[in-house]
Parts: sequence; structure tokens; C-alpha cells
Amino acid sequence: MSLKKERINEIKTLRSKLKKTHRITCESLEKILYEPFKVLDHGFIRVMDYMGDDSAIVQSARVSYGQGTKKVSNDKGLIRYLMRNWHTTPFEMCEIKFHVKLPIFVARQWIRHRTANVNEYSARYSILDREFYVPKIQHMSTQSTTNKQGRENNLSKKDALKFLQILKDDAERNYKNYEHMLNEKPGGKIIDESKEGLSRELARINLTLNTYTQWYWKIDLHNLLHFLYLREDSHAQYEIQAYAEIILNKIVKRWVPFTYSAFKEFQLESYNLSSNAIEVIKKKLCGKKISYEESGLNKREWIELKNKFGFKT
Amino acid sequence: MSLKKERINEIKTLRSKLKKTHRITCESLEKILYEPFKVLDHGFIRVMDYMGDDSAIVQSARVSYGQGTKKVSNDKGLIRYLMRNWHTTPFEMCEIKFHVKLPIFVARQWIRHRTANVNEYSARYSILDREFYVPKIQHMSTQSTTNKQGRENNLSKKDALKFLQILKDDAERNYKNYEHMLNEKPGGKIIDESKEGLSRELARINLTLNTYTQWYWKIDLHNLLHFLYLREDSHAQYEIQAYAEIILNKIVKRWVPFTYSAFKEFQLESYNLSSNAIEVIKKKLCGKKISYEESGLNKREWIELKNKFGFKT
Amino acid sequence: MSLKKERINEIKTLRSKLKKTHRITCESLEKILYEPFKVLDHGFIRVMDYMGDDSAIVQSARVSYGQGTKKVSNDKGLIRYLMRNWHTTPFEMCEIKFHVKLPIFVARQWIRHRTANVNEYSARYSILDREFYVPKIQHMSTQSTTNKQGRENNLSKKDALKFLQILKDDAERNYKNYEHMLNEKPGGKIIDESKEGLSRELARINLTLNTYTQWYWKIDLHNLLHFLYLREDSHAQYEIQAYAEIILNKIVKRWVPFTYSAFKEFQLESYNLSSNAIEVIKKKLCGKKISYEESGLNKREWIELKNKFGFKT
Amino acid sequence: MSLKKERINEIKTLRSKLKKTHRITCESLEKILYEPFKVLDHGFIRVMDYMGDDSAIVQSARVSYGQGTKKVSNDKGLIRYLMRNWHTTPFEMCEIKFHVKLPIFVARQWIRHRTANVNEYSARYSILDREFYVPKIQHMSTQSTTNKQGRENNLSKKDALKFLQILKDDAERNYKNYEHMLNEKPGGKIIDESKEGLSRELARINLTLNTYTQWYWKIDLHNLLHFLYLREDSHAQYEIQAYAEIILNKIVKRWVPFTYSAFKEFQLESYNLSSNAIEVIKKKLCGKKISYEESGLNKREWIELKNKFGFKT
Repeated sequence: MSLKKERINEIKTLRSKLKKTHRITCESLEKILYEPFKVLDHGFIRVMDYMGDDSAIVQSARVSYGQGTKKVSNDKGLIRYLMRNWHTTPFEMCEIKFHVKLPIFVARQWIRHRTANVNEYSARYSILDREFYVPKIQHMSTQSTTNKQGRENNLSKKDALKFLQILKDDAERNYKNYEHMLNEKPGGKIIDESKEGLSRELARINLTLNTYTQWYWKIDLHNLLHFLYLREDSHAQYEIQAYAEIILNKIVKRWVPFTYSAFKEFQLESYNLSSNAIEVIKKKLCGKKISYEESGLNKREWIELKNKFGFKT
Repeated sequence: MSLKKERINEIKTLRSKLKKTHRITCESLEKILYEPFKVLDHGFIRVMDYMGDDSAIVQSARVSYGQGTKKVSNDKGLIRYLMRNWHTTPFEMCEIKFHVKLPIFVARQWIRHRTANVNEYSARYSILDREFYVPKIQHMSTQSTTNKQGRENNLSKKDALKFLQILKDDAERNYKNYEHMLNEKPGGKIIDESKEGLSRELARINLTLNTYTQWYWKIDLHNLLHFLYLREDSHAQYEIQAYAEIILNKIVKRWVPFTYSAFKEFQLESYNLSSNAIEVIKKKLCGKKISYEESGLNKREWIELKNKFGFKT
Repeated sequence: MSLKKERINEIKTLRSKLKKTHRITCESLEKILYEPFKVLDHGFIRVMDYMGDDSAIVQSARVSYGQGTKKVSNDKGLIRYLMRNWHTTPFEMCEIKFHVKLPIFVARQWIRHRTANVNEYSARYSILDREFYVPKIQHMSTQSTTNKQGRENNLSKKDALKFLQILKDDAERNYKNYEHMLNEKPGGKIIDESKEGLSRELARINLTLNTYTQWYWKIDLHNLLHFLYLREDSHAQYEIQAYAEIILNKIVKRWVPFTYSAFKEFQLESYNLSSNAIEVIKKKLCGKKISYEESGLNKREWIELKNKFGFKT
Repeated sequence: MSLKKERINEIKTLRSKLKKTHRITCESLEKILYEPFKVLDHGFIRVMDYMGDDSAIVQSARVSYGQGTKKVSNDKGLIRYLMRNWHTTPFEMCEIKFHVKLPIFVARQWIRHRTANVNEYSARYSILDREFYVPKIQHMSTQSTTNKQGRENNLSKKDALKFLQILKDDAERNYKNYEHMLNEKPGGKIIDESKEGLSRELARINLTLNTYTQWYWKIDLHNLLHFLYLREDSHAQYEIQAYAEIILNKIVKRWVPFTYSAFKEFQLESYNLSSNAIEVIKKKLCGKKISYEESGLNKREWIELKNKFGFKT
């Protein structure tokens, strides 16, 4: 994993200090604080800080409802209720800060989630490391013909290997030329003392989109769940899914377990029936027949509904 | 102060628990965590949670600049540099959560700061307490004639006292009628068991704008400073200034002292010279004369500049 | 309706000018531009400006998809597809600007929708009109016991009339005292020339929450739909529903008819099945029995599901 | 310029239709609607739609101030006043939508301005064109030693030419391999019918950061000015400055001329004096001496102040 020695020492130092606090503290998250989870070939994600946990959500909801919440018996039930009824503001009361190393093409999708704070490594100031994403052979898939933005089958092994070689060669050569134009290596070593290099902000434009960058990313829990809803989904590009999957199952699950399970129940694994689909289901439930033509659904929606609920014609 | 007994006990409980954490911790803020600062007659503000401190800003800035920041020698200097050059994103890496009790007319100004998270006490669910803001006599001022949105002189003592009585009487009678229509008191005691009350969401519309509400308010440091820049200013309404002043001098100063002093130096106590004002100062500095008519400033700007820099004509 | 004579003349003037433009223009919206729709007793809403229409959404989506959209045959189908699959950014490409007159307690709910631009009438600068919301008798309902934030039955006629009188009397007296403290009437007439009045920013705190205010509110279509999703809903307070209903059925329907019908089909009139509810439906569909106890739903969810899909047990 | 034939025809069609509207219309902006301004070697920016103009700002401000603005005599004066006193909400009432073609490394800086709406061409759906940014020789500069993120001198002509050749060669070869892996050309022509290509979302990761992308970008005027304040600045990277300069001087100037000149006067060409710098200027103005050591400024600030106001020592 791409955690250099100085970073490993930094983590040890950070983790060695135990401080006292009156704040809400999440023990299971403390255990993994600063520790990187590996993602893709050179990426990682680690929690740098957090605020609140399930109890902070409940605490905030109780401010809103005042004496009105007395009857909602317990924390888990209240969180299910909030999630089910789109009462989103209490989830905004938790905050988390990540350090992420990710390929630039993933960063470009990620940054579209606007309600978050970001500090990215600046390639205008500093030199990027020689690290680029190269997929595993099983992820080298053909273009999907049904889903215009997706993948479908595996490529032939021969083509896959050939293309992987192209990706590696092109990234490496472009990086080598980047260093050459900079006349400098990461760490500051000048290559040819008799020369001046091209400015960093220009030399970097030669790099490929699979080059790794890194950033601090801070977001509230409500917006994080929305990010996960869209990016942990099977329609998202595999490479960003890989990050979302870690955040969801390794981090959110530890941090806010009640919220995690309510999120799965009412959002991730829920299914939204359109007004027409509701009518189809209602007719089926009372034993009436309804054909595709009568349904008001289009072909794609009809097939999806059939597959989801396992009925024929 | 309007902290009921149950709240005082809650604070004691929260403060009695000392937990261990690997997170960045701010000792001087821990000392006041959960403790209310009194504001106005029944209001308060208290810190419920926080993330980061000055060192977290520096940590984030160093991710952006990578090896490029080696030369910026120290944390304080780096924070001054960031503040002076509008590098705002590292300040977004700190977050703070407040519990505030405030009059509704103040809440209406406060909420205009959109980049924040809020959970307000809901008067649809629960009954508001019998608490309304009544100014001190020295704040009962006349309308300013120069500043259309401001105050000017003190009212005559006689008028001031008369108006204070009106404010009290109207608020109390409206509250009494609120309870009467609800047929219920805060805490849930039914007034007349033989009757049904008006729904809470309707009864509350009878209350006056000086009634107190409360909320949890969570915001990042960059946006908090922007709030303070606008609301700690002498053009803001006195009542919101009172909150801003406490946040600035009792809370921000403790939490992020380097940021606090850079904020004062480069923002709060700075002065922005327009292009025309720059030319006036430059001419004055090299001993040339320049009249109001030649300055390109309007009358108000000219007078303000003269007063600020202490020159005549 | 509370459109003063000067405003009626202003509308006539604005509507009398027909200009030429190369922009996308929506004829059916042009017909009602500047014309107020009455809401509640003194409120209104009117469209002041707009950008785009259904075709602008399609145009933007086609930029995203490039040659990939060739196959999606028509505009209506593409908009349904976008709505169904949460592709929200094309809807952000339309913008609309309203002028709204609304009671302060409604404004306080409305402003919670943060992704919008607002310019509100300032009662620090100017004097508010003598206008307050008083419900119709059929809206004077008791507190709901099942829904802590809602209404239930009508009050007895006797109580309703009594309470309406209280609402009127309190609002009027508080307004009268507001004028008295200001020593000035709307329009600027000084009441007693020998005296100075209390500053506007203070006098207003005596007003009741049903006093009308007004603002310009500008928002993109995606965020407007989210506002409507939450506020046109039967759980929203009746008074804000009244505004949402006009926006939805009188304005959005005219402006973007394809979006309007897709929004109803896939959002407003859709139903979200939780993972547990999906299993219940699937079992029912293939003729299996499933009891409440086995369902994983709580009582409230179980009853709602039964009612929605009309099955027994 | 990279406007393909179909786009030129589309512009002709759009411009040929003149519709009637009651909306605020800006004649000088209508003249350039849809027409691209060329930026860099293959980029462009064009206005696709707009809402409001200077008069809309004034209209909104007058809603806020009500009768209070009677005294502010004219539109230009009111806009100067709003700009000077940070009354930003009226500027949010204008909106503009652009179509921009820009290199990916510029897009990455641009997208950091979060309060805007974006629809980007998706390289998951469609194939990017063979277009990459190659600087002009006069922009091939060395790394600045004083400004860690900037450029300084020109490279030697020999090195500049050599590096330009590298940039071209690497971009072209990577693009060629992109097409090869896709097994498809832009427009959909399959290269080898006997084969399947790599999915688009993966093949694109081989492209260089100077590849052009395009998007629709919609933003309100207040946030646009903030973008211009940061990106038209000499510390911004030259390539994004080139876009900002066109937006400012070719578009904003036409659209909202009063706002344009107030923005220059009070923001772009203004100078912010820190509290310490104010004291230096005050002492100088009344003929007192003050040395660098006494000033409280650091070296960089001291030199900048001296240069700005033209005083010695």
C-alpha cells in the first residue's frame, strides 16, 4: 500500500497519544482512527476525525421534538423513524473527516458531491508521486450495450493483457516525461543542475487520468449517506464503488450502527414503486390480470418490476 | 438564566464522563464544553461538540501544499498566510456544534447563513416556554436617520419605560392566550379536561417575535468566521451582535487562538480601500493635494475615509 | 388580495412591454408572468422571471450523454428516464424567481430549504403592513394524537369562533402598539410630530408570528421539486401546503409539463418499499401467508402497507 | 475553433428564432447569445441563457428595503452601495448559463466553486474528441521560486520547443491508444468489426489531463463574481485566467455594466489593509516615521505595502 514510511510513523505517533475528552466518543471508530483501508491498487481511505455518533442524532432529534418525543421509546426506533420519514436534519449533526488517496478520474466523479469540504494535494505546489491505477484483469470489461455508461463482459484474455500493458506503458512514459520537464523528482532532487524546469502547474498536464491524487474530505452524515446511495450502487463505476463499499461497511457500520441498518432497510435495499407500478402490484395482489400494455410502464420498467417481484407476464 | 434543572443535571452528567480519544483535542474548549454562556435576558449559547483546532488547519493546508510548505516555518505564520490570501478551504476542516437559545427575530436573521446545519425546537410538536426577550432600557433607541436600518439615540426614559411595559404586556397576554387555545401547559398538563385544544402548529401563530426558541447549530470554521464578520459588526442588530460577540471572544478565541488573531488582523479590523480610495491615499502619501471633487468617491465614502485615516479636507 | 394599487400598475407596466429574445421561452408561463395567485387570506405568489423549460433539461442531458443519447427517442421519454434514475443535474438547469407574500411562521418553514436565493422585505428598514393570517374556521383543528406534529378534528364551532377572535384581537392590538412605538404609519406618516419613535428593528419584535412578510425567492427546478415533495405532502402544515399546491399545479405544470408528470409518477405519487416490505409483497404475490410478526415491520409500517395495497390480515 | 459543423448550424437555428417575452431582457447580451468566444487553442465559452440584469438587482434590493430606499437616488448608486457594503443577496437574483469547452486540468480547478450547477459531457457514455491543450511557446515558463504555485521566466526556446513536442506526442499517442482500446472512433465508427472494445469508462483513464471536456455551467451573479475575483487574479493559473478574463470583460460587462464597474472599484482593484497596515498608513499620513520592525507586518507584507503605495523605507 502506498503509505510511505513517514506516514506510518505519523500514524503511530497520532495513535500513541490518548487524550481525555468530554465529547461524545465512538469506541469502535477510535480503534481504526488514522488506520488506512486499502482500496484499488494504490489507494486508501482512513478516518482522520469524527463528530458524534447514533446518540448525537437522537439528541438533536429530541431538541426538535421537545416533549413530543417522550413516546418514541428508544434510540434505534427513533433513528428508523427519522430515516423512513426523510427527517434528514438530525443526521447532519454528525460529521466525519477522511484522508483519501484516489485516481484522478475517480476524484472527478467524487467532487460532484458539492456539500462537503475538500483540501486536495496541489500539483501546482508539489510533485505528484509515480502512482497510477491499473485495473485487475477481471475488471477489464467490454462496453455494455444495454447500459450506455456501464461494462458488460470480460474482454478476451489476450486483449485484456494487451490493454493493461498499454495503460502501464503510457502512464509510465508520461510520468517519466513529467519528471523530465520538471527537471526534478518527488522529494526535490534536481535532475540536471545546469537547467531550469517547466513550472509544476504546466508539467502535470502531461499526466494520465489514472494518476493518483489525495485529499482530505469532510462531510456530514446525511450527505455521506446520499453519496453512498449513489456511489455504492451497481450503476456507479466500479472504481468509485470500491471506495463507497469500504466507507459503508468498514466505517459507517462501526460509527453509527443504528443509522447503518436503517439506511440499508429504507434506502439502499428499498424499492421505489411509481404510481403506475403501484397499480400493477395492487391488481396482482387481488388476483387480477394486468398486461404490459395496460400497465403504463415502458418495457424496461415492466421487465425490472417483473424481475424484482418475481411474477410472470 | 433559562437552564432548567433537568438541563443542569444533564450538563453535570455529560461533564462528569471523561472518555479517551485519539482525536485532536482542544483543552481550553474542553473546559467550557456544555457550559452555557448567558446572552440577552433569557438566551444562552454553549458548545456541544467540536472537531479540530488550529493544528487541524495546518495539517490540511500541508496536504494541499505537500512538500511545498516546508519553508513556511511555523503554524502561526501559515495560518496568517492562509487568512491573508483567502485560502479558505483549510478553515473548513474544523467544525463546531452549538446549542443556542435565542429570540425568534434573531433566529430569523441567523438562519440566513445557509451553509450550516440546524435542528430547531419544533413548535408543531411541542409547547414553547413562557420566555420572551425584553430589552434593557439602555437599548431602547430611536430610529437612526442616517442609517436606515439602525438605532440612534436613547428614547426619553418615560417613553422607554412605557414601551417596555407594552412589550411585556403584549408578549404575556399573547402567551396566555396561546396556552388557553392549546388547553395545555408546557410539560403537558391539560388545563380543562373536558375540552380539546387547538393544534400546536396553529396556536403558536399568536406568539410574538420576541419569544425564545432554541436550536442546535453546526457549522465549519470558515463559515462561522463569515457569520462573525457580518454579525459582530456594528451595523448588525444589537441583539445578534450579542451572540456573535460571545462566540468570537469566549469560544473562537479559546478554540483556535492563531485563527482568532489572524481573523482580527486581516478581516475584522482590516479596511478595504476601493480603487479610488487607493489613489487618494497614494496622492496624500507623496504630499499631493486631492479634493473630494477629484476623488471619485461619493460624500459618504469621502467622510468615512477622512475619519478612518485622520486627514483633513 | 393584498396587491396595492401601485403594484397593480407596476404589473400592467411590466406586462405591457413585449421584448424580443433569442432565449428559450415558455409561452404558457409568459401568460401568467407577474400575475399573482392568491394564497390564504392575504398572501400571494407570482412568477417574476424564469430560465429554461422542458427542452432546456433535454438539451443539458444531451450534453452529458453526447452521442450516447441518440437512442432515447424523445423528450418526454428522456425526462421520465432522468426522473426515474435520479439524474438530477439536468433539472438544475432551469431556474425560476417568485415574489411571495406569506405569514412569518410559514416563512420560517420555507427558509429551511437552503439551496435557494432570497431577498426578504426588511422590517429593520421599513414598516410592515397591517396584515395577519387568520385561518378559515374549517382549518381550526385540534391537535392530532397519532401524529405529534399534525391536526386532527375540527374544534367545536364555539371554541373555533372564540379562538379566531383571540387571534384577530391579539394581532391587531400588537400591531397598533407597533405603530404607536414607531410613532409612524406605513407610508411614513409621523403620528406625533413632537416625539421620536422606537427604532424599527426593535418595535417589530412586538408583532405576532402570523404577520405577513414578503420576499423574492429564486430556485432551480431540481430543488423546487424537492421543496414540493416535502411541502405539498399531507404531513406538511396546511398553510405551507397551500403555497406548494399553487406552485405545483398552477406554475410548474404550465412551465415544464413533461417534468410535472414525471415528478408525479416517480416521486409525488410513488411509494417506497423498505427491504422488509418488499419481502412481504413478494410473499403475498406468490400466494404465501405472512403475518405482522414475521414481517420485520413495526405496527405503524404494517398498517400503512396494508392500507396502501389493500390486503387483509 | 472547435465548433463542429453541426454546432454552427445549431447556433444559426437558435439565433434565427426571435421570440416575444415579458421578462427582463438585456439587449447587449442578446447580441452574443449562443456565440462562442474562443479561449486557449481549442476551448470556447458561450452564453446559453440568462436571467435578469442590473435592473433586477435594483428591483430585489428595493423589495428588501421597502420604502426605505426612496432616498437612494438611482440604480447605479444603489448598486455601488450594495457592492461596497457586502449586501450580496440582490446579486444572487441574476443567473447565467454557459457552455464551456475546457481542458480537464482547468475543469478540476473550476469545479471547486461549489455553488453552481453543472452538466458535464460524460466519457462513460460517449467518446471524447481528439483535442488537447498545448500551450503557446510564450507560456512555457519555469517554476517560480518565490511563489510556490506560480510561473516565472520563459524557458529557453530550445527546451520550450522540446517540451511542447513531448506534450503533443504523449497526448496524441495516448489518444490513439484510447481509440484502439475502445475499438471505436468518435461518431461511432467501429475500427475492427471482429472485436469488442474496452468499456468507455475504463479506456478514458489513459487520456492526459490536457484533454478537452465540455460542460454547461449555471451560476448566480454573486457567486460568478466570487469566481472571477479568485480566477481572474494574477495568482490563478494562466489557463483558467484566460476563461475568467473573457467572462469578465466580454460577458459580465455587457450584461450588468453597473455591477461590472462597481465590482472593479470595490473588489477587483481594491486593496485590503490589515489592522497593522492601517497603522502604518496613518503614521505615514501625518508625517511620522515607522520602520519595518515596528510595523507588525512580516517582510513580504511590508514589501507589498511599500510597492502598492510607493513609499520608501
